[in-house]
Amino acid sequence: MQVTIAVDAMGGDHGPPVTVAASLRFLDETPDARIVLVGNEDAIRKALAATHTAAAERVSVRPATEIVAMHEPPADALRRKKDSSMRVAINLVKDGAAQACVSAGNTGALMAISRFVLKTLPGIDRPAIASQLPTRKGVTTALDLGANVNCTPEQLLQFAVMGSALVAAVEGVERPRVGLLNIGEEDIKGNEVVKRAAELLKVSGLNFYGNVEGTDIYKGTTDVIVCDGFVGNVALKTSEGLALMLADFLREEFTRNVLRRVLALFALPVLNAFKRRVDPRRYNGATLIGLKAVVIKSHGSADALAFRYALKKAYAEVTHGVLARITQRLAATPVPAASAVAVTPVNFGDA
Amino acid sequence: MQVTIAVDAMGGDHGPPVTVAASLRFLDETPDARIVLVGNEDAIRKALAATHTAAAERVSVRPATEIVAMHEPPADALRRKKDSSMRVAINLVKDGAAQACVSAGNTGALMAISRFVLKTLPGIDRPAIASQLPTRKGVTTALDLGANVNCTPEQLLQFAVMGSALVAAVEGVERPRVGLLNIGEEDIKGNEVVKRAAELLKVSGLNFYGNVEGTDIYKGTTDVIVCDGFVGNVALKTSEGLALMLADFLREEFTRNVLRRVLALFALPVLNAFKRRVDPRRYNGATLIGLKAVVIKSHGSADALAFRYALKKAYAEVTHGVLARITQRLAATPVPAASAVAVTPVNFGDA
Repeated sequence: MQVTIAVDAMGGDHGPPVTVAASLRFLDETPDARIVLVGNEDAIRKALAATHTAAAERVSVRPATEIVAMHEPPADALRRKKDSSMRVAINLVKDGAAQACVSAGNTGALMAISRFVLKTLPGIDRPAIASQLPTRKGVTTALDLGANVNCTPEQLLQFAVMGSALVAAVEGVERPRVGLLNIGEEDIKGNEVVKRAAELLKVSGLNFYGNVEGTDIYKGTTDVIVCDGFVGNVALKTSEGLALMLADFLREEFTRNVLRRVLALFALPVLNAFKRRVDPRRYNGATLIGLKAVVIKSHGSADALAFRYALKKAYAEVTHGVLARITQRLAATPVPAASAVAVTPVNFGDA
Repeated sequence: MQVTIAVDAMGGDHGPPVTVAASLRFLDETPDARIVLVGNEDAIRKALAATHTAAAERVSVRPATEIVAMHEPPADALRRKKDSSMRVAINLVKDGAAQACVSAGNTGALMAISRFVLKTLPGIDRPAIASQLPTRKGVTTALDLGANVNCTPEQLLQFAVMGSALVAAVEGVERPRVGLLNIGEEDIKGNEVVKRAAELLKVSGLNFYGNVEGTDIYKGTTDVIVCDGFVGNVALKTSEGLALMLADFLREEFTRNVLRRVLALFALPVLNAFKRRVDPRRYNGATLIGLKAVVIKSHGSADALAFRYALKKAYAEVTHGVLARITQRLAATPVPAASAVAVTPVNFGDA
């Protein structure tokens, strides 16, 4: 299957040196993929010249004169920067010139422009941010990780449908177990939105496991974890912060004196194996799910390895037909109309 | 200062073997403390007989015939078990026979009974659960960690006042920095409750740092982290789950083959130093803050070391006059009346 990915080459903290290098490396290992690099042509050509590979013939460059800044208000990026690398990349998907878009740029702008240009799938109120997290048993897919600070029960159900379809399509899990993130396992716990969402999930036809707690995320209790964007974002960022702190503490203990430094040399293969196992770069690439096309958000600070994983994710979602699967699941799921509870869109300012 | 602590000897997964042993060890190192062990007299006497220490003369036993089960509905525990070890321990505090109560039992029951028997401080709508978390710079105190699933902006302000007073009193930080947990640093982010809370905090006279994100918790950006109980509980339990998973992965990598096992022997002091540094037992003991007395909740699975830390926390809060400090801060802070936003109390079912 021939897949073309539109890459916002200017997005993220590093721009073309990372996005272009990752694109070439990705094409090297994915013979039936093509990439359109969007952005400042000089910068892109320069980065292309730095790497010699036959895969370069599957790259094309689409100039764009503007760049969405990482902390720019999404509404400004949407209204004023019609020729930003991000906007042009998304337009390529809309026009059918590409099947997916990948950007490491401003999350809020990517969401706002994607919604405006691509629109949401029928039956979906608002897109969510979905991402894989490592667990003891493999991976779990959590959503929403920050697109919607207040969610209705019906939206949480939509997230569950989309998460299930994503996991079923890409990971081949026939009936993914869906957990509803809550602060206790009993039905009586949680707030009204979560309680009502549980009721909807029970009759949804999805493989609803029930309420799960924060500890269940990394236990791998379920294949899908559903929560509102505020809670999901806090859980994600708290995890990032804790992992970084623990990694630093471990490094500090192994470098406290000369003896320990020598020991660390011997322990290096073990420590590296440990590090690889939870390397966040391998999980890079969050799906803006619920749009009429595949849009993947890479972490802003992604290096070439991490950005390559985001490209692989876009490719996998296209080749596995995630969008069709979501549409099928939506059709098979009794999704009630959105309730009157207010939905507050998030105004992202950075990555 | 003579301090008497009422200990719910039957609470938690282990009961007297842990609570009594921890109490004696605590008294050994705290000459001006006394402990009243509340619960099944036979079980307590048996546990007391297992340890020989002069500190035993500062222990008294108060029989109680009932035990609150870990998964018992709090309302049942409150209404029906008037002679539970938990209830009797709290009564001792109310009657002035003890200055603090420590229990490893059912969190919801402890909160419900404490509120009913001890009442909240004037100006506090509902108590919160506050606990210390380790950070790169030392510790931070986070609240609410699960007592209130929906909070008004005014309650978040109250949490900030209480958290500041707690940190100021126990840790001697004159003006603790207060962070409001949000999903972005800019004022525009977050939901309406958090936005309004930020406005209240800005004019509160507290040392308000501003919004913080999940990553800031372990960075130690602020001395106090304020959030609603749903978000706080998810952040706490997600952290617990991640830390356990990483510890297991590290253990697995160091035991993968014979060579690595030998290496692990040499690395043991380093790994143990690392483990000690983030040992959750050293942070055991959450404060049910906002009550008219000091009540500390120990983790249900606490061992004797962990339970001793909970006792130390109770002792510290009494000797440092936390309650008086909260009352002073409340008087000095313009706390608006609670708004009309509904407050949903949590119905805890376990520890």
